[in-house]
Amino acid sequence: MTAVAPWSWPERIALREVGPRDGLQGRPPLPVDDRVALIRALVDAGLTAIEVGAFVSPRAVPAMARTAEVIARLGPLPGVRRTVLVPNLRGAHEALAAGVDELTVTLSASPEYGRRNIRMTLAESLQQIDEVCRAASARGVSVDAVVSCAFGSPYDDAMGVDDIAALAVRLRELGCGAVTYADTTGLATPRRVRALVEAVGAGDGMHFHDSRGTALTNAFASLLLGVRRFDASIAGLGGSPFAGGAAGNVATEHVVDLCRDLGIATGVDAQALASAGRLVRRLLEPAPAAEADSQPA
Amino acid sequence: MTAVAPWSWPERIALREVGPRDGLQGRPPLPVDDRVALIRALVDAGLTAIEVGAFVSPRAVPAMARTAEVIARLGPLPGVRRTVLVPNLRGAHEALAAGVDELTVTLSASPEYGRRNIRMTLAESLQQIDEVCRAASARGVSVDAVVSCAFGSPYDDAMGVDDIAALAVRLRELGCGAVTYADTTGLATPRRVRALVEAVGAGDGMHFHDSRGTALTNAFASLLLGVRRFDASIAGLGGSPFAGGAAGNVATEHVVDLCRDLGIATGVDAQALASAGRLVRRLLEPAPAAEADSQPA
Repeated sequence: MTAVAPWSWPERIALREVGPRDGLQGRPPLPVDDRVALIRALVDAGLTAIEVGAFVSPRAVPAMARTAEVIARLGPLPGVRRTVLVPNLRGAHEALAAGVDELTVTLSASPEYGRRNIRMTLAESLQQIDEVCRAASARGVSVDAVVSCAFGSPYDDAMGVDDIAALAVRLRELGCGAVTYADTTGLATPRRVRALVEAVGAGDGMHFHDSRGTALTNAFASLLLGVRRFDASIAGLGGSPFAGGAAGNVATEHVVDLCRDLGIATGVDAQALASAGRLVRRLLEPAPAAEADSQPA
Repeated sequence: MTAVAPWSWPERIALREVGPRDGLQGRPPLPVDDRVALIRALVDAGLTAIEVGAFVSPRAVPAMARTAEVIARLGPLPGVRRTVLVPNLRGAHEALAAGVDELTVTLSASPEYGRRNIRMTLAESLQQIDEVCRAASARGVSVDAVVSCAFGSPYDDAMGVDDIAALAVRLRELGCGAVTYADTTGLATPRRVRALVEAVGAGDGMHFHDSRGTALTNAFASLLLGVRRFDASIAGLGGSPFAGGAAGNVATEHVVDLCRDLGIATGVDAQALASAGRLVRRLLEPAPAAEADSQPA
């Protein structure tokens, strides 16, 4: 009875679990043992790309201190890409010395967010990314550039989609193997997602936050547009410590459930994932595991 | 760069606010004054259909006792449809005597949920609805039949979409002017929504719960399919007291924000709606306003 064209979506998507980094970074530090246990539980659930930590100032982000120890304790994880966030060349050197598989670098489509978060202009960010890419390339390690505020910014007029598309081209020229668009403060909507995908193509990654309850809706919209790469966070943990009102990432459980229903392969075992979710809630007690989720639901 | 067909959605949707009934029914009773103040705040926000209460056993659902007083205190609300839930002919007579504009009746697509919730078989439900429709029709009052567990049931094998479509035809034969499909326990997914809309058409209403974080995603899927009528609850309050694990309704704020972004008229003023949301949170303190939202986010 409905005349709507058939929906289509990819047969398979790649999930990058960011809970151990984006999910934990704004919280009181967890012991190295707990961070390792969480990452192992995520590996057991079938996740094959995990952001395991960050090489950032331990003063600015205490929860990410000791990431080198986490990586050493984990050792190589066959079939799993261990990613870390690095803000600059110094962080990249530390990460490469620790022996990771991928670096993420961030830059902001919102000048004001960039000033607050990474304290760099766009030109300075690109300069740092250039240096990081050179160092990573020399070690055969890939770099994923995460563009924050890619769907708008509460601080200023963020870049439009054409400028973001041009930026993505520039990032690849610098040597970034992948580009991911982050909805840092939950401003993305299906319409904005579509506009961005129409400008940049469906080959890049999406990183949604749930500040306005729209994370899974935006992920569904992305799937309808053919997007095949998503960041997600166990139990929906997350939120930038530098962006007021930023809430958790889209929950890995929700993305996996949605994909299972749509027949999209994720490689993730929902029961083992639920077990990792229970672990992270236990580790984070007494702080409520869903504290960021204070918007109406 | 993407070859996905253009999306379309309705120009306008009709929202029915169910917070004062579905949102409050599982909670400790609020004073009549507070219930009236909440409904008035919702009217001020531009909502033109509001489920203001229920005529059910005050022993079974204490929060809905004194609904007649709420209606008397409200008086007629020009331009606003005041709806109440009635479980049977006795409730319908009370509601009609109180002077409402619409009755909602429920029946379950899941026999076991029907047994637990309304303690009736499908045949018994249809018999009651027949009686309610006759009484309502004699007073020129419309009846909306809400089919619970229309997207599946955790208790048993709920009806398939063809049986639900046949049920909708039967309900209209009995005199129901509208039919609404409720995702009582959060089992709906975009795929299931599409299957149902393809069976019943896009003219009926949707009532989504957020038990698995999918309420807004299912609403977006419904919009893409042309659905134009939605139930929603201020601040995402809600959840059946008879369905373990049932979480709040889709938040009116989220639906309004999504529609605003898509250019869909709702008639609702987002700022006044936010004000109603603050009011309901204040009225419900110290109970957390988003308690139902304990799933990962």
